[in-house]
Amino acid sequence: MRLIFLGDVVGRSGREVVLSRLPGLIDTLEADFVIVNGENAAGGFGITEAIYDDLTDAGADVVTTGNHVWDQREALVFIERTPNLLRPVNFPAGTPGRGAGLFEARNGARVMVVNVMGLVFMPALDDPFGALERQIEACPLGSGADAIVVDIHAEATSEKQAMGHFLDGRASLVVGTHTHVPTADHMVLPDGTAYMSDVGMCGDYDSIIGMNKDEPLNRFLTKIPSGRFEPALGEASLSGILVVTDDATGLATSIEPIRLGGRLSETFPRS
Amino acid sequence: MRLIFLGDVVGRSGREVVLSRLPGLIDTLEADFVIVNGENAAGGFGITEAIYDDLTDAGADVVTTGNHVWDQREALVFIERTPNLLRPVNFPAGTPGRGAGLFEARNGARVMVVNVMGLVFMPALDDPFGALERQIEACPLGSGADAIVVDIHAEATSEKQAMGHFLDGRASLVVGTHTHVPTADHMVLPDGTAYMSDVGMCGDYDSIIGMNKDEPLNRFLTKIPSGRFEPALGEASLSGILVVTDDATGLATSIEPIRLGGRLSETFPRS
Amino acid sequence: MRLIFLGDVVGRSGREVVLSRLPGLIDTLEADFVIVNGENAAGGFGITEAIYDDLTDAGADVVTTGNHVWDQREALVFIERTPNLLRPVNFPAGTPGRGAGLFEARNGARVMVVNVMGLVFMPALDDPFGALERQIEACPLGSGADAIVVDIHAEATSEKQAMGHFLDGRASLVVGTHTHVPTADHMVLPDGTAYMSDVGMCGDYDSIIGMNKDEPLNRFLTKIPSGRFEPALGEASLSGILVVTDDATGLATSIEPIRLGGRLSETFPRS
Amino acid sequence: MRLIFLGDVVGRSGREVVLSRLPGLIDTLEADFVIVNGENAAGGFGITEAIYDDLTDAGADVVTTGNHVWDQREALVFIERTPNLLRPVNFPAGTPGRGAGLFEARNGARVMVVNVMGLVFMPALDDPFGALERQIEACPLGSGADAIVVDIHAEATSEKQAMGHFLDGRASLVVGTHTHVPTADHMVLPDGTAYMSDVGMCGDYDSIIGMNKDEPLNRFLTKIPSGRFEPALGEASLSGILVVTDDATGLATSIEPIRLGGRLSETFPRS
Ligand SMILES: [Fe+2]
Ligand SMILES: [Fe+2]
Ligand SMILES: [Fe+2]
Ligand SMILES: [Fe+2]
Ligand SMILES: [Fe+2]
Ligand SMILES: [Fe+2]
Ligand SMILES: [Fe+2]
Ligand SMILES: [Fe+2]
Repeated sequence: MRLIFLGDVVGRSGREVVLSRLPGLIDTLEADFVIVNGENAAGGFGITEAIYDDLTDAGADVVTTGNHVWDQREALVFIERTPNLLRPVNFPAGTPGRGAGLFEARNGARVMVVNVMGLVFMPALDDPFGALERQIEACPLGSGADAIVVDIHAEATSEKQAMGHFLDGRASLVVGTHTHVPTADHMVLPDGTAYMSDVGMCGDYDSIIGMNKDEPLNRFLTKIPSGRFEPALGEASLSGILVVTDDATGLATSIEPIRLGGRLSETFPRS
Repeated sequence: MRLIFLGDVVGRSGREVVLSRLPGLIDTLEADFVIVNGENAAGGFGITEAIYDDLTDAGADVVTTGNHVWDQREALVFIERTPNLLRPVNFPAGTPGRGAGLFEARNGARVMVVNVMGLVFMPALDDPFGALERQIEACPLGSGADAIVVDIHAEATSEKQAMGHFLDGRASLVVGTHTHVPTADHMVLPDGTAYMSDVGMCGDYDSIIGMNKDEPLNRFLTKIPSGRFEPALGEASLSGILVVTDDATGLATSIEPIRLGGRLSETFPRS
Repeated sequence: MRLIFLGDVVGRSGREVVLSRLPGLIDTLEADFVIVNGENAAGGFGITEAIYDDLTDAGADVVTTGNHVWDQREALVFIERTPNLLRPVNFPAGTPGRGAGLFEARNGARVMVVNVMGLVFMPALDDPFGALERQIEACPLGSGADAIVVDIHAEATSEKQAMGHFLDGRASLVVGTHTHVPTADHMVLPDGTAYMSDVGMCGDYDSIIGMNKDEPLNRFLTKIPSGRFEPALGEASLSGILVVTDDATGLATSIEPIRLGGRLSETFPRS
Repeated sequence: MRLIFLGDVVGRSGREVVLSRLPGLIDTLEADFVIVNGENAAGGFGITEAIYDDLTDAGADVVTTGNHVWDQREALVFIERTPNLLRPVNFPAGTPGRGAGLFEARNGARVMVVNVMGLVFMPALDDPFGALERQIEACPLGSGADAIVVDIHAEATSEKQAMGHFLDGRASLVVGTHTHVPTADHMVLPDGTAYMSDVGMCGDYDSIIGMNKDEPLNRFLTKIPSGRFEPALGEASLSGILVVTDDATGLATSIEPIRLGGRLSETFPRS
């Protein structure tokens, strides 16, 4: 099957590039399943139900999140009625919403998606490795799911690569989010799991991680906040990947970057 | 002029790919100046004088470092007699060696190279923005140097991007090192500075940031160290960039990734 | 009942003051149960079986630890045959040893001791609050144990105070360790739990957290390691507390500091 | 001379205990100079000019701060006209206000006060050790000042102790603030500098570092913010020290804790 994963959508610019281009991408790339990380979709901070609806209307089957998941307080409520919106699975028991789900793709395949947060340089949550071990034991690739996708929302490349190797041969795709910069290390790991340290953001790259440069730069220089962080409003780049899996095994046969528009160098899958 | 920058060389595999391929690269790309980050060249930890000599023999004009600079204690001594080896400029006054220098390129041009460490999720050092302000004031692009290259050795994409925008129009290249993963956001910023969040490592990418996977994975899973970190010994990828600058202004006209060998997808400059 | 708790024993000086004075303290204070944090007992780093035996011979009923628990690798082995040695309970499942136990005091009472690590500014482990909730649910004060003592090995005062209030009325004592400095906030919380943010170390206070000042100071000043950390060898202070509980409820009626010898101002319980 | 130092005043409860008791304390203890850390005086976050005026009216000669200094934005303005309000000296050049000053005590003596922030587990600022070296070189004890007081606003006991030993014999007092818990390690260091790792807060100790327990506890348990932090409103403890110096040398002859009211055990200087 053919999976599209798009990185953290940041603010209005990010939403525009996703909403305008995702439907065409799904057609062109004959995608069976689409996952979008939406943790920064609402003004850079969190996600509203209206934006969630826009993303799913544009073709997202699942929307993942990260440390910003609760920045819009309404997410604590509407996540309960939107099973296709995931928050990191390693929040404590009792947290609203779910961190993993089994979803049906356009081609009828069952896709398990797990959203998890890393701990290195990140807020304290439960162990992400233990969480994934339990998820995959409960629903293994093959018997439980036709594809397994893990969005590891994390800072450190070491932790993301460790998760990739930990799940190599047991997941279809382990992909990082959170740094808002795409990496160039997309590869199929030795045992068949597609991997990329960070898929990058869908947003304006003439910015500091999607935000208007002024305030972040001011804080680095003066160490004194002088205003809010606001999303940069220039033309956004869409940043994502296409992963093709073997229907027999659920493992990956290819992973290719998608970068369209804005300031990133463009690239498009050949598969 | 034409500059090559290669990211953190990790262990023997990393050294082999650099030593074997750099001379040919310099020829093919008609490079005027070559910078290599060597902080992990000696078994993953620091750099020895013998390895420094090998890197310069292979064509490196300057070797930069980072948080691992002193892992081999001999570096505290031989850095004093090797002006082309830089340690981060924002160590305290009195630290052995230098953090910046003005060097002559093959074409006679004067290249200022500054090595600096970020502070976000990194050890405490002096302010990198203040340090660069002072360096560039003392030796501005044009009057003081024909090209200025900044190696910002840092974890967070936000801090690296902030440095890029802070120096945009005042440096030829701001390039990140330290995460050991190349990013795909190479671009010329609006005012003419070439930028890339991380140039990646020269090392074996079937690894955890260049290290044999076993011990890092063990630590993530058990939280108990059970051995040393050892470099991975598989075939390495060379990961770097080619930056072309305008001789009149010292600003960049292009930045293109170089990725050769090993598990990374290969790419080669067209300029 | 009457409980003594002594803070992190650091190196030879720390052991000497504990071994020489604990037996007399137990007599004088008519202590029913003694807990000693031993994570730095072996040269400042970890604990050996010989040292563990010395501490229990001197009267310790339970030895707790913290982030340094595995610094002496033999601890991974002998902890399995020494049920009175605890490591933090929030290590992953499968970690050698135990993080909690039910022990019999000299007066026949059952004392549950839990050793847990905080997460703020500390290595990533499982959630300490969830861990304590489970422990106390399984063995509540009154029906399950006559006294419950929690050693929260943590950096931040906020997290330690949060644990105190979280368990107020459900534990006999919540006491912090790890900062190696005694606090002066010993108090019985509103619902009857004795609390102190940090009990301090048993070690030489003419030092930097028990270590010879030279190398820590060198690192703060130069940012370059130039040697090992070695315990300070001057006269140690013993630093601990006496907690008296109501036999009917298991809750605390008093908590008083004990500080003897060395450079700390001396103080002794009046209860 | 006789110096009083009071720790972080937190919210209305903290202000009340300071405003009501400081005038009497100054009389009783015959204090020549009074320093109060006011970084949390305004609702727990920062300081307003009205509150600053109240503190100086009650007898504070100097008000120091810390990481919360700019939480009330008006501080950026009024600090310029209030030389007796200090912000940490290791903010970047160009920061409003001053980090050190030379003040005249009631007895005519010149007191240099330096406010500095530590870097361990704290926001990135300039090196505190280098900053103090420069301050004390410019104004040494004896020739430049009759007493020197350093408020090191920091998290880690190691860094505070390192500063104490770094300045031992060169300052009258090195005292920590920020953790909001008084330590019991007040001592005169070997070369004559009075030292205490943390002087504690002036605030309600039935709290989490001075804040109403509910929201901090909620965040530790759920990892989801659900409201603002508000100061606890119960009866506050005043927490401070009295330091007596030798007029001939400016070095300390004694340091004694002051703890009055609220939930802390009370103690009062005998000197
Ligand atoms: Fe994000
Ligand atoms: Fe994020
Ligand atoms: Fe490196
Ligand atoms: Fe590094
Ligand atoms: Fe300790
Ligand atoms: Fe510890
Ligand atoms: Fe404070
Ligand atoms: Fe503070």
